[in-house]
Amino acid sequence: MKKRKVAVLGATGTVGQRFISLLAGHPWFELVALTGSGRSVGQRYGDAVHWLLPADVPEGVADMPVLPTDGPIDAEICFSALPTEAAAEHEAALAKRGHHVFTNASVHRMDGDVPLLLAEVNFPHVRALERQRRERGWSGSIVANGNCTAIHLDLALAPLHRGFGIERAVVTTMQALSGASYPGVPSLDALDNVVPYIGGEEEKVVAEANKVLGTWDGSAVVPAGIPMSVHCNRVTVRDGHTETVSLTLRGAPAVDEVKASLRAFRGRPQELGLPTAPARPVIVRDEPDRPQPVLDRDADKGMATTVGRVREDVVLGVKFVLLGHNTIRGAAGASVLNAELLVAERCI
Amino acid sequence: MKKRKVAVLGATGTVGQRFISLLAGHPWFELVALTGSGRSVGQRYGDAVHWLLPADVPEGVADMPVLPTDGPIDAEICFSALPTEAAAEHEAALAKRGHHVFTNASVHRMDGDVPLLLAEVNFPHVRALERQRRERGWSGSIVANGNCTAIHLDLALAPLHRGFGIERAVVTTMQALSGASYPGVPSLDALDNVVPYIGGEEEKVVAEANKVLGTWDGSAVVPAGIPMSVHCNRVTVRDGHTETVSLTLRGAPAVDEVKASLRAFRGRPQELGLPTAPARPVIVRDEPDRPQPVLDRDADKGMATTVGRVREDVVLGVKFVLLGHNTIRGAAGASVLNAELLVAERCI
Amino acid sequence: MKKRKVAVLGATGTVGQRFISLLAGHPWFELVALTGSGRSVGQRYGDAVHWLLPADVPEGVADMPVLPTDGPIDAEICFSALPTEAAAEHEAALAKRGHHVFTNASVHRMDGDVPLLLAEVNFPHVRALERQRRERGWSGSIVANGNCTAIHLDLALAPLHRGFGIERAVVTTMQALSGASYPGVPSLDALDNVVPYIGGEEEKVVAEANKVLGTWDGSAVVPAGIPMSVHCNRVTVRDGHTETVSLTLRGAPAVDEVKASLRAFRGRPQELGLPTAPARPVIVRDEPDRPQPVLDRDADKGMATTVGRVREDVVLGVKFVLLGHNTIRGAAGASVLNAELLVAERCI
Amino acid sequence: MKKRKVAVLGATGTVGQRFISLLAGHPWFELVALTGSGRSVGQRYGDAVHWLLPADVPEGVADMPVLPTDGPIDAEICFSALPTEAAAEHEAALAKRGHHVFTNASVHRMDGDVPLLLAEVNFPHVRALERQRRERGWSGSIVANGNCTAIHLDLALAPLHRGFGIERAVVTTMQALSGASYPGVPSLDALDNVVPYIGGEEEKVVAEANKVLGTWDGSAVVPAGIPMSVHCNRVTVRDGHTETVSLTLRGAPAVDEVKASLRAFRGRPQELGLPTAPARPVIVRDEPDRPQPVLDRDADKGMATTVGRVREDVVLGVKFVLLGHNTIRGAAGASVLNAELLVAERCI
Repeated sequence: MKKRKVAVLGATGTVGQRFISLLAGHPWFELVALTGSGRSVGQRYGDAVHWLLPADVPEGVADMPVLPTDGPIDAEICFSALPTEAAAEHEAALAKRGHHVFTNASVHRMDGDVPLLLAEVNFPHVRALERQRRERGWSGSIVANGNCTAIHLDLALAPLHRGFGIERAVVTTMQALSGASYPGVPSLDALDNVVPYIGGEEEKVVAEANKVLGTWDGSAVVPAGIPMSVHCNRVTVRDGHTETVSLTLRGAPAVDEVKASLRAFRGRPQELGLPTAPARPVIVRDEPDRPQPVLDRDADKGMATTVGRVREDVVLGVKFVLLGHNTIRGAAGASVLNAELLVAERCI
Repeated sequence: MKKRKVAVLGATGTVGQRFISLLAGHPWFELVALTGSGRSVGQRYGDAVHWLLPADVPEGVADMPVLPTDGPIDAEICFSALPTEAAAEHEAALAKRGHHVFTNASVHRMDGDVPLLLAEVNFPHVRALERQRRERGWSGSIVANGNCTAIHLDLALAPLHRGFGIERAVVTTMQALSGASYPGVPSLDALDNVVPYIGGEEEKVVAEANKVLGTWDGSAVVPAGIPMSVHCNRVTVRDGHTETVSLTLRGAPAVDEVKASLRAFRGRPQELGLPTAPARPVIVRDEPDRPQPVLDRDADKGMATTVGRVREDVVLGVKFVLLGHNTIRGAAGASVLNAELLVAERCI
Repeated sequence: MKKRKVAVLGATGTVGQRFISLLAGHPWFELVALTGSGRSVGQRYGDAVHWLLPADVPEGVADMPVLPTDGPIDAEICFSALPTEAAAEHEAALAKRGHHVFTNASVHRMDGDVPLLLAEVNFPHVRALERQRRERGWSGSIVANGNCTAIHLDLALAPLHRGFGIERAVVTTMQALSGASYPGVPSLDALDNVVPYIGGEEEKVVAEANKVLGTWDGSAVVPAGIPMSVHCNRVTVRDGHTETVSLTLRGAPAVDEVKASLRAFRGRPQELGLPTAPARPVIVRDEPDRPQPVLDRDADKGMATTVGRVREDVVLGVKFVLLGHNTIRGAAGASVLNAELLVAERCI
Repeated sequence: MKKRKVAVLGATGTVGQRFISLLAGHPWFELVALTGSGRSVGQRYGDAVHWLLPADVPEGVADMPVLPTDGPIDAEICFSALPTEAAAEHEAALAKRGHHVFTNASVHRMDGDVPLLLAEVNFPHVRALERQRRERGWSGSIVANGNCTAIHLDLALAPLHRGFGIERAVVTTMQALSGASYPGVPSLDALDNVVPYIGGEEEKVVAEANKVLGTWDGSAVVPAGIPMSVHCNRVTVRDGHTETVSLTLRGAPAVDEVKASLRAFRGRPQELGLPTAPARPVIVRDEPDRPQPVLDRDADKGMATTVGRVREDVVLGVKFVLLGHNTIRGAAGASVLNAELLVAERCI
């Protein structure tokens, strides 16, 4: 198979770096272009980036030039790690010019004609693309993925919502520092501290989680409408969001049924054997003290969500804790998997 | 007023150190004895302790000898920071011999004739002491305080339970490392991590919080019986437990009524102007990103609970985040305040 | 004694906050004005500041307005926590208008007519003020203090240089995050990491340490000329710089003589009993594992330097480790003590 | 080639875990046995271990039983991660019974007939094995590697000592928490802190570094005799020791010559292309702020030492900072590479 040419938009940030790391040696995609902003345009990528991942910038990428996001890009597929304003400015223009944009930005997530795609969960939502192309007159497209917190929450909620129906949920998150990008959280706010607030996050998680779990009614996504209460906190962890979840399931299934449902969960990426797909989207652990960021964030190359401590909840019915890598499955990896799915399904 | 002689039992641990720090220069109490175990017995306290607080061991204390807990102790009031097994072994014996034991240990907290005292909240529970003395034939007494997580939770819940009635609550904690004593949590488990489990803690918090909010019916405490679901986590914070709380209040009061109720809360310690009492047991902040451990754990010398982000909860009604110092108000400071209250009320 | 009116310039940063904290309730100084820049001008201080210290903004200060640094300031003494460029722009102008500026900024530290004052060490350098006023035609003055790393190094080196003579020194620092101000070091660079580089710091430490230890020859300071090699590192510590020091002393004194010299050290602030002076500028500890930031940075209210592990050095002669609070004695506290000294000595 | 059977002694600790991780899928070695102590003996390894590495226990290993170290071990080659006392008790006995023991323990490192082998540096020292077998009457052998700090120091010093000659060195270390094994450093000592002391470490580094750089005179190793002064510190880093080094080289080579010498360094493992050998033992970086633990500890799979900031030292001549992974190249990886070298050279 000939590799598809891909670009990374906003390549110097933490999510941009993850894209580059995931695309190095990708069997289907060939990274041919990188974009950035301001004074990084025109520089070697290796000089422009404050690289934050353990391994060096992949061979060949360091020497690529940083291009402006509004210039010509010789890549059909664009992975967007653009900050909000730049995404608002450029993504639609790129889709209009024929690019397929897989974006982490929040701008278009809640648009009626933009699929908020979670590859294992809501493939039918891609039908929104027909409406998108028709109404907007685009030859390309925009496919969004949810924010890091919503993605991992949805991976755990999806089999339960499908299997039982979720009536309500109360969630508290303990989110990693890398989710705030770079420079992000000042160390004086992070060290020996918890910040019990992330601007706009709680509303986003509720809206996105419900859209992903919603159904395509032929012309639009009908959100799942699950009442959810979310408390978002920033903790002193580099990577990996932890979330405690208390919820009410229809029929009040036993803890073992809940665990079995999570363990049995598979989606299209697993059926198709997509290159970036985890073997199981949800890993359920039985140890009393798992998942933990240092031990579980890299599970299945950071593409799986790990659930632990599934047990009864005296108030809402059942509760557990989940953990997932926020910049891999929670961002860049989700986009790459979405693109793989659309390629495999011949949607693009 | 002549100072009352006091001892600290289990003086070398983290809570023992807090006792010593709080008792230095106390206007009513004079520290005259320290006990320890094993090889620390017989040593100078300054040599036996691995002191972990910022200021040095208070003048005079460093040279005090570490006594065995089962030997004679020339102090009417004993503050106990004993570990569970030692508490089980020694506290009753001391009460029998006439000492008034104010204990942080969990052993006797749920005993029917032991007041689980939170000075602002349930002073009437001290009437259990009459039963305790009568049934056990003790000349002394045991008064317990709750665990660190329950104490701060109860300080915030008490005015709401009294003012409105609490129907149910879902709580997630992010607890400090000092709560696990010393050596406690290994640094390899703490750094860049969250541990979503603290053995036995969730059950303890629920039981204790309900006992404290319960009522004395003349012969026993009737627990409040509020269904509570608690998720306990350990985070990379030295001192200060953070708790997110979602709850249902009878009558569904507005957010402003909830805040007003918390702000208006005062108890006997405030009325009596006890030396260790905070000006207000609960401080309510309006900033979007407070409370935070580094900024708020030392509020009112670590004796107050700080509540922030009071807002509507779409699932349960109202939610907020609270924070308090776990080894001051959550442990040693609670005991000292309890002792002050019983002295002021002439109960001991 | 009537209190002298003082202002804090650049009051919203980390050092500005320390000034405010140290001046609250100061017996000689009354804080009457605060300045800031950009959009903070005109705001209430409490609204403009991202307060980072444990206790709240002192009563009365939160409501003070933030003034522009270039407007009229009704305070004879100005404590400057201005960033470099603002210091370059404003400090000389203020001195010209009659203010006595005690500055933490680096701009004027190495000027020939500006005393780089370390209150215990080089009071004779204040004679530079005569030249400063004469040559610059100022009615006010500028007195600088060294950078945080140099101050603590000089406190330990001064008695040794005076008592024995220092021939050379090799120093490695492990510096706290608060030294980089706010927002300063991004948490992704700080967590689980060491950054072995602080721009410009190594050169500054060498130059400043030598100027402070130098002698006033009647018209200028002759630097001490001690060859020093410094490695600067940033570590995951909130406050408190740790420095390992290996050095050669003339006459090769024994370890005990070195310790005795450090312990015997007293300066003018101690003789005069200045309000902010530590009892001893240098505390020598004998434990094998001290000093440590969490245990020793607040020694004597953060105004002392703690030295430990004094022992033989097979290469250079003697070695030890020192630690001091970087924003108290290493910055704001040094300025306040300098001002106290000049007031007590009737220099201003 | 038929794989050689290997065992890991003391397999449950942090270094034991690294051995298991490095031996999973090793092309020459097949892990057939694990030993442990106390109550872990007889358990499944997966149950006995508190696994601390990101990926799970390798497939197949979790189900292996933990054997006693003093029972029969069906493996010619034994990698020892035993604690000191257990090493003293068992290693010689195993060598006597014919096993080739590659040990991280310190017990035998300084024995005259035990090679303290650093694969790139002192292969000739293996001739000590003849004396070892002859004098001790062993059919097996003991080969030690240095401690984590000494190994990385020696990798950087070896080419300089060979190329120029080292006259003296002053070193300050900032060592990772994993070097203290598990549970190791309590989190209350690690968080927001530096501990400027590691018991016995400074002496060990000096002695071992000099033995490794020494020469085999036909019957014994003559240590290099370089005067070295070492300050050891523990910092809040999970993995990766950072060391600042100031040294005097014979002939005072220019900085560029020093860098060229480090960059040109290759040893037998590189010539032989051993499976675990890094491409280059020393990586020299030119950025002003490297190496850093989070970015460089995993360089070349954690088997290389990274050197940065090579520059003039006004006191000693030249200085730089180095960093290496303490449990990979600094421990388990060093042993595995030593074993590969002896197998390739047909010494065992």
